[in-house]
Amino acid sequence: MHDGAAATIGRYRPTGFPDRVRVIEVGPRDGFQAEAGWIPTARKTAIVNRLIGAGVPQLEVTSFVSPRAVPQLRDAAEVMAGADRSRGARLTALVPNARGAEAAAAARVDAMVVFVSASESHNLKNVNRSRADSLDGFETVCAIAREAGIPVHGAIATAFGCPFEADVATEAVVEIAGTFARLGMIGVTLGDTTGMATPPLVTDRCRALKAAVPDLEISLHFHNTRGVGLVNVYAGLTEGITTFESAVGGLGGCPFAPGATGNICTEDLVYLLDACGVETGIDLDALIGIARDVETLIGRTLPGQVMKAGPRLATSPLDAVATACG
Amino acid sequence: MHDGAAATIGRYRPTGFPDRVRVIEVGPRDGFQAEAGWIPTARKTAIVNRLIGAGVPQLEVTSFVSPRAVPQLRDAAEVMAGADRSRGARLTALVPNARGAEAAAAARVDAMVVFVSASESHNLKNVNRSRADSLDGFETVCAIAREAGIPVHGAIATAFGCPFEADVATEAVVEIAGTFARLGMIGVTLGDTTGMATPPLVTDRCRALKAAVPDLEISLHFHNTRGVGLVNVYAGLTEGITTFESAVGGLGGCPFAPGATGNICTEDLVYLLDACGVETGIDLDALIGIARDVETLIGRTLPGQVMKAGPRLATSPLDAVATACG
Repeated sequence: MHDGAAATIGRYRPTGFPDRVRVIEVGPRDGFQAEAGWIPTARKTAIVNRLIGAGVPQLEVTSFVSPRAVPQLRDAAEVMAGADRSRGARLTALVPNARGAEAAAAARVDAMVVFVSASESHNLKNVNRSRADSLDGFETVCAIAREAGIPVHGAIATAFGCPFEADVATEAVVEIAGTFARLGMIGVTLGDTTGMATPPLVTDRCRALKAAVPDLEISLHFHNTRGVGLVNVYAGLTEGITTFESAVGGLGGCPFAPGATGNICTEDLVYLLDACGVETGIDLDALIGIARDVETLIGRTLPGQVMKAGPRLATSPLDAVATACG
Repeated sequence: MHDGAAATIGRYRPTGFPDRVRVIEVGPRDGFQAEAGWIPTARKTAIVNRLIGAGVPQLEVTSFVSPRAVPQLRDAAEVMAGADRSRGARLTALVPNARGAEAAAAARVDAMVVFVSASESHNLKNVNRSRADSLDGFETVCAIAREAGIPVHGAIATAFGCPFEADVATEAVVEIAGTFARLGMIGVTLGDTTGMATPPLVTDRCRALKAAVPDLEISLHFHNTRGVGLVNVYAGLTEGITTFESAVGGLGGCPFAPGATGNICTEDLVYLLDACGVETGIDLDALIGIARDVETLIGRTLPGQVMKAGPRLATSPLDAVATACG
């Protein structure tokens, strides 16, 4: 990067932004689970390990869910076993119930992630039980995790809105986070399941949670369904949030809704953070290479933009085909 | 919108944001010009008039450029003649030279837009002359416009970076804007031709121009090439900028680079502004309908997200196929 641009970044770092952010890669779980075609275990492990090699500090590697519910992740234990532990990346897994918690503990995950929806109808639809029943079940999971010395994070789906109920009350989110804290969890992730988060809602949730559960680390998990995923990250950074989830290439789009993107894209997120002078420890060029290979692996175009355009200062030769179509 | 959400927007309107923004639709010019297949004049006029009907207050309708250079816009005069003047929308056109200025004046455009690149190599590549020669040419255009009583806006391409020269100095942008002001132009548009703008660079340019040319209205024109187009808008809003250019559906992607998006998408922009409590006067639902029809018209998938996902609070029936793939 030119000195001039670096100086500009230094001078105009947006107000409130943290110096450093932890990017949590969720593609191997939230992305791969949405892929209908079987991805061989060795391929999954290879992607996980290349992401670790690129400097990603934390990954949601898989989900210890019923193989019947999510056949794509039936190799959860094998993928965990193949993951590179040498670089100290934190390897987490989604855990839907006690059975999953035991499998995750056996696989020596660094943290378990449990999840419940902020809206009753979405929770019923998603896991076929009430929110109260989900929260009850977390007690058992937390007991198993405690026994194994493994911390637990709680994730709240539909935290910014529900596809069935529309707006979701801040209080519903705060109440669930309070239960997480009482159960001894160490963090709360706000999931924007169907892309309904907006900057004012991000500000609202972050401030409410900081006040109500100050001991829980807040992570934000946005989908780019309505094109404003990274704007929501920006709003979260303004509130001093330091943990964001994303998927390489923007994996996680619903294969049944072509063009509708899923998770915000890790390379685009890291590109934005780099551009704003926020450290991630992640090698953007390496990430772009992985995203391109993941695209080949799953055989469809991914929504990531930086993986197509390349880094910002990759200049073209002057005799190249005109680049300025627009 | 629920009262709760409206109250949240009111409470958490981001710092510095203006109450109202003027969205300038550039799809009929910057978008259509990138389409290889001929779009019949009546179709172009119909799209322009539906956009006006949706409440778009200003449109870059066409370009009075040589039909040899841009065959798609050879019907510039006819499209202007067919545009609906009854709603008071401001109709502008791009004007590359004196000949174009005379044609634009004859077509009674409400404003002419001239353009030059901030970087010498891009200007040479784009219009085959030096920046100095481009600026010299604007004197004639401005004289013709003055004679016709038509205001002139100046646009600066590669204002945030150049594909051939990488970073562009703030001073290059400021100097050109100074010439615009001396020539009597009323506004300056910063064009992010190949998607190199970042939030700190937006802050830098906006502050430098406000100091150097306080009488020029600043407009921002971002491309979403690296996924951060709307984040750049957000940074501009924070600086109090009130004029943004965008293209319906995200038109303007280079057809030779599949998947690489062009202009930021008008519906996604209006969705974000609505979500932040910034007035535009534009009907989002109408815009979504137009974007979907434009997609059909040009026969390829457009990058707009809201046109696929629908408005935020469009709830699904509970018996719908599970929407939460991710």
